[in-house]
Amino acid sequence: MSELDPEIARRLKRNRDGLVCAVVIEHSTSRVLMVAWMDDEALHRTLTTRRATYFSRSRGTLWVKGETSGHTQHVREVRLDCDADTLLVRVDQTGPACHTGSHTCFDGDERVLLADQEA
Amino acid sequence: MSELDPEIARRLKRNRDGLVCAVVIEHSTSRVLMVAWMDDEALHRTLTTRRATYFSRSRGTLWVKGETSGHTQHVREVRLDCDADTLLVRVDQTGPACHTGSHTCFDGDERVLLADQEA
Repeated sequence: MSELDPEIARRLKRNRDGLVCAVVIEHSTSRVLMVAWMDDEALHRTLTTRRATYFSRSRGTLWVKGETSGHTQHVREVRLDCDADTLLVRVDQTGPACHTGSHTCFDGDERVLLADQEA
Repeated sequence: MSELDPEIARRLKRNRDGLVCAVVIEHSTSRVLMVAWMDDEALHRTLTTRRATYFSRSRGTLWVKGETSGHTQHVREVRLDCDADTLLVRVDQTGPACHTGSHTCFDGDERVLLADQEA
């Protein structure tokens, strides 16, 4: 049972695994760093500690971002979208956000599926 | 059966509904406009027409963004993340992106779950 604020818990529209999508953006650059997932407890901890905490779908456990790597995220702001199933998490990122060592999880030419014609 | 480029189809890691998450950002402002979902055919059409096309989980059908509202998205760039389960779609947005009439799906004070202490 999560201690998440009941008012917030009432608003959330979770998927069938009990999760909401979290889009993580960097405050200083406005770049999208990564996308992760939160259950109620991960959101509760994120809101109360300002340390970004997610739910690992592969491991089935909570994880504090950077707990082992040191690449932590200090949470400045959290917003809920119009459908109440997606969070926008604005952070100050320490070090690279991606486990590959890239600054974001979208960096690298090999990740481009469609290139900007004007770029 | 989708006509999506087999090379791209091979890379995608779809959820159990056959979908990948699409984070949509505005080229001119770098803001996150919305989050939607794509199946292979939605991605194929998005890549080949540069008109953002999504899969509606509620209706179970494809939808071209702005088809009825006129609030279309011209797609400049599409990137796949390190886990190959999330797309970053950079668009030129015509009109508001949100069905509520807000520019983004995250606008409005009522959507703030945690406020920026420095704001």
